[in-house]
Amino acid sequence: MKKIGIVMGSDSDLPVVEKAMATLEKFGVPFEAHVYSAHRTPVEASEFAKGARANGFGAIIAAAGKAAHLAGAMAANTTLPVIGIPIKSSTLDGLDALLSTVQMPGGLPVATVAIDGAENAALLAIQILAVEDAALTEKLDNARKEAAEKVLAKNKALEEKYAK
Amino acid sequence: MKKIGIVMGSDSDLPVVEKAMATLEKFGVPFEAHVYSAHRTPVEASEFAKGARANGFGAIIAAAGKAAHLAGAMAANTTLPVIGIPIKSSTLDGLDALLSTVQMPGGLPVATVAIDGAENAALLAIQILAVEDAALTEKLDNARKEAAEKVLAKNKALEEKYAK
Amino acid sequence: MKKIGIVMGSDSDLPVVEKAMATLEKFGVPFEAHVYSAHRTPVEASEFAKGARANGFGAIIAAAGKAAHLAGAMAANTTLPVIGIPIKSSTLDGLDALLSTVQMPGGLPVATVAIDGAENAALLAIQILAVEDAALTEKLDNARKEAAEKVLAKNKALEEKYAK
Amino acid sequence: MKKIGIVMGSDSDLPVVEKAMATLEKFGVPFEAHVYSAHRTPVEASEFAKGARANGFGAIIAAAGKAAHLAGAMAANTTLPVIGIPIKSSTLDGLDALLSTVQMPGGLPVATVAIDGAENAALLAIQILAVEDAALTEKLDNARKEAAEKVLAKNKALEEKYAK
Amino acid sequence: MKKIGIVMGSDSDLPVVEKAMATLEKFGVPFEAHVYSAHRTPVEASEFAKGARANGFGAIIAAAGKAAHLAGAMAANTTLPVIGIPIKSSTLDGLDALLSTVQMPGGLPVATVAIDGAENAALLAIQILAVEDAALTEKLDNARKEAAEKVLAKNKALEEKYAK
Amino acid sequence: MKKIGIVMGSDSDLPVVEKAMATLEKFGVPFEAHVYSAHRTPVEASEFAKGARANGFGAIIAAAGKAAHLAGAMAANTTLPVIGIPIKSSTLDGLDALLSTVQMPGGLPVATVAIDGAENAALLAIQILAVEDAALTEKLDNARKEAAEKVLAKNKALEEKYAK
Amino acid sequence: MKKIGIVMGSDSDLPVVEKAMATLEKFGVPFEAHVYSAHRTPVEASEFAKGARANGFGAIIAAAGKAAHLAGAMAANTTLPVIGIPIKSSTLDGLDALLSTVQMPGGLPVATVAIDGAENAALLAIQILAVEDAALTEKLDNARKEAAEKVLAKNKALEEKYAK
Amino acid sequence: MKKIGIVMGSDSDLPVVEKAMATLEKFGVPFEAHVYSAHRTPVEASEFAKGARANGFGAIIAAAGKAAHLAGAMAANTTLPVIGIPIKSSTLDGLDALLSTVQMPGGLPVATVAIDGAENAALLAIQILAVEDAALTEKLDNARKEAAEKVLAKNKALEEKYAK
Repeated sequence: MKKIGIVMGSDSDLPVVEKAMATLEKFGVPFEAHVYSAHRTPVEASEFAKGARANGFGAIIAAAGKAAHLAGAMAANTTLPVIGIPIKSSTLDGLDALLSTVQMPGGLPVATVAIDGAENAALLAIQILAVEDAALTEKLDNARKEAAEKVLAKNKALEEKYAK
Repeated sequence: MKKIGIVMGSDSDLPVVEKAMATLEKFGVPFEAHVYSAHRTPVEASEFAKGARANGFGAIIAAAGKAAHLAGAMAANTTLPVIGIPIKSSTLDGLDALLSTVQMPGGLPVATVAIDGAENAALLAIQILAVEDAALTEKLDNARKEAAEKVLAKNKALEEKYAK
Repeated sequence: MKKIGIVMGSDSDLPVVEKAMATLEKFGVPFEAHVYSAHRTPVEASEFAKGARANGFGAIIAAAGKAAHLAGAMAANTTLPVIGIPIKSSTLDGLDALLSTVQMPGGLPVATVAIDGAENAALLAIQILAVEDAALTEKLDNARKEAAEKVLAKNKALEEKYAK
Repeated sequence: MKKIGIVMGSDSDLPVVEKAMATLEKFGVPFEAHVYSAHRTPVEASEFAKGARANGFGAIIAAAGKAAHLAGAMAANTTLPVIGIPIKSSTLDGLDALLSTVQMPGGLPVATVAIDGAENAALLAIQILAVEDAALTEKLDNARKEAAEKVLAKNKALEEKYAK
Repeated sequence: MKKIGIVMGSDSDLPVVEKAMATLEKFGVPFEAHVYSAHRTPVEASEFAKGARANGFGAIIAAAGKAAHLAGAMAANTTLPVIGIPIKSSTLDGLDALLSTVQMPGGLPVATVAIDGAENAALLAIQILAVEDAALTEKLDNARKEAAEKVLAKNKALEEKYAK
Repeated sequence: MKKIGIVMGSDSDLPVVEKAMATLEKFGVPFEAHVYSAHRTPVEASEFAKGARANGFGAIIAAAGKAAHLAGAMAANTTLPVIGIPIKSSTLDGLDALLSTVQMPGGLPVATVAIDGAENAALLAIQILAVEDAALTEKLDNARKEAAEKVLAKNKALEEKYAK
Repeated sequence: MKKIGIVMGSDSDLPVVEKAMATLEKFGVPFEAHVYSAHRTPVEASEFAKGARANGFGAIIAAAGKAAHLAGAMAANTTLPVIGIPIKSSTLDGLDALLSTVQMPGGLPVATVAIDGAENAALLAIQILAVEDAALTEKLDNARKEAAEKVLAKNKALEEKYAK
Repeated sequence: MKKIGIVMGSDSDLPVVEKAMATLEKFGVPFEAHVYSAHRTPVEASEFAKGARANGFGAIIAAAGKAAHLAGAMAANTTLPVIGIPIKSSTLDGLDALLSTVQMPGGLPVATVAIDGAENAALLAIQILAVEDAALTEKLDNARKEAAEKVLAKNKALEEKYAK
């Protein structure tokens, strides 16, 4: 199976990004995690992206805050799908990172998920790998069923409490 | 090759969405385009999503404006990758559609591109198909080279004009 | 008397939504509360809406955060009045939920109240039932009078403290 | 049948509000339209709201732009359901009117629709009257079916054009 | 000397509004403080405004949060200068109250100060009274001098600490 | 009678500001209009403010766009009431000018009106002069009555057209 | 004298950026203009930045719209001062470019000017060169004087027209 | 070496601004820090700016919150480069200060850094001095290398932890 590359602009993003790792592990999808900054280590960041397809990666997840250029820098150096997680920082509630990540110019898409949406970034990466992988598709379908059952169990608990 | 499904909430979105179609055609990627509204035709919309994988689709592009629920409605009914294009409408400059599309809850990612970013939605879909398709990857790489050459040609023209 | 249906996208919305329940109870208006997610349990959510009128509901209150599609999903499946409560979540201060709820396309209104405005959602539902119910109207009028008296009592306390 | 009251803060709102009137006429729902300003004619505005229930109204639609207080002023003077249409004006793209209309304090709901959403305001008013009116409910259901058929006809036209 | 009327929409605004009272007291300007809600006690609110000039008031300060209509309701019922304090509440960081207060339609100005800017509201009221009051003008000039001296003292302390 | 000083940051603001002049003329209130920039002519701007009270002014209206500092610069140099008009420019729809004008720090109020709200700026200035001027108060009251009558005439026209 | 490097992400930015060129020419400051995209030509963009100091540049001006990474990409590859011009594009009124340019992480400043503020970008570059250049400083001082005189001439024209 | 002038509008800005001082000290760049308010001490503020070049300053850093005019007031009184730090205050998350600082009119640039971006303000000042100072350039280059090494060390730690 192809691997998922995870890059984050700073290790302060780790508490958010760890949800992506946990999700990939739950689905048995291999990944590599790196701290690369589009600004402080531009060479390493672009080298990682340039080599990603040859190195067995199927998609790259990039997490960054503020003027979040990391996902865009990945996208500029690979034609693999790049998934961007805008990270909320101390001001503007993540709006800066969201717009810096999603408003990419024509030619270089970044598949952007919600602010701090690390779980969804991992799920999107898994969905991409699952396009040609029936076993992974089954795992995704099962996870959906479990999520639905959880909601329905909560519904039942609520109904018992309120729907007299 | 798998097909790309394109759904739009209204045929008034067509002028934007046509750029996605043109891009898919340029890359020789088959697609189907539909007008399905998450609100006016919820059954048809969810049926399309539910059957998409079995019907040979590899990804779904969903374009909608205002309280843009179409991409989310697709995502709720398939585990295929869903790509959302927020469409700018007559008020709020597309911010409503962007937030309605990108801020999805945990478990159901929508790969969101820029407001009115139809070309990038198509490219992202192609990138997804290209993960396991070397010929398509080569086309993407070539398109990147062409885009770079176009920029460099413009640069040359500008240099000749200004850099005395 | 017709019942009010309350649906919420997640049981994490309960602390806000409980104010709606308390208000309905205060007015003696029957209700049912459910956890249904437009995304995780789309079938159950739409089934609830489709059957609501036949099942004796007079209006539906839907509470959801982020890309809040639940109220819209209700509206897509019933012609009963649907009241939307945008729930504030960890980023963007509720603006995402507000725009996702209120900016509905033509044909499918969602009666949107303030961010986290659960009490008002319940009052609006009661006002709707009261259009043809004189006793309920009287209760609403009395509640207004009480609210006014509370303000005037606070005013009196303040006047005594400051208006020497 | 109860009437719908339509008030607008200025006759410059008429081009938007006329869509509400046309919708009410299409459904055969009687209405009265007035220009009352919460600020320039506060007495007439509040008198209209105070007498609305006794005068046979079932709901009030209030349209205003900028610091849009008209719907709130209606709500302060009646316990009938009040529907607010935020009107886009020359600055801020309607955001000022949206927030001024929807962010009502506890106790006084305004059922807010989208910016310039006059058609939906009328439909919401009709839905409210239809709670106890089977014939009107049938009309709403038929209108939904027609809207769905329109979407599906557009879909068919699009499919013929693109889905080769 | 004319009095300043202070009205607030709720006694929860008092912690902010007390800075206005303290400022008026410091300048020896008489005031009356009231809790009147534009929505819950519209009659009392408008009666206060209507009688304000005859009752010896020179300006009215109105503080309210969310869809803040109180200052506008004052302005609708008097031609005295009305000063609006937008109050920050639990969502949207005060932007809703700011736009609801400042974006008044032509004909009815509200002199708006910063979000939670109660001290400045009081100073503006004092400046208005001081237009025809030389003694009050002198107090304002002295307060400015004191404020400047405070800044310069802090500057001196900082210079001693850092400007080696 | 005291004069009103009008300053604008650029003569490109004149089309908006002329409504203030027209309003002052209509009320027979004398004024002086100047182009002073807080940034390009800081000395002249502050000299105007410093001398304003001695030169017979009762209030200053300042209009500026973008990072609108002019009203603040006036306020820093006089204790007369300063009224700020935020001017909409080519980007951000006037939000920049609104926040730059209204969010003044403690000690220096700027009485801010709506974006491009020149008529209201003039009316506020007149209201300030009218606090001690019964004749001017009467004019304000009459203008209110006229405005109300205009609304009621429009209402009548509308009623005749729609309220069958 | 050192040169100023001007880079823009697309030649569609040229109508805005030309004001920067005109300003540099007016001050006799040499410059080179290039079209380099942070995303389409990342190598050329970073090569330009890396070599800029050695190639005789004193500062770099970078103009880009949407998720504007160009200035940040320059900053990542040089320790020369980098000046960012956020360019307004078809959605969001330039807010996306502003936040993407200004909200840089610690360690890599971008000196950001106003949206579409090309003239100021050039002036800032000239101010930087002028720190050690008395002749250029004199030109800047003279330009200020001229700008002030222009304002005062406009003021005079206005005074003659209005200040009767 | 030229000095850097640091001015802040209030000593409450000091916790943020101290990072600028620490950075300058680390690079051995002399500075002076002052508390000057554009509004409370306009004379002292403009005097500082006017004399700054003659007093040996090479750039001015100005930090202020809310309607942040201090950087603009500096820029109005010197042709030295002025660097603005927008300070986040209790409402609006720093957006008011950002727009008040960056949206300067043509002719008077303020080199704006991120909200609360004091470290970057200092680095930008150092970059400006370094244009003609090879030793300082070397220090900047070394700091970049150190920052990159720190990122790479963190990357290594992360790789060891996660990249099995």
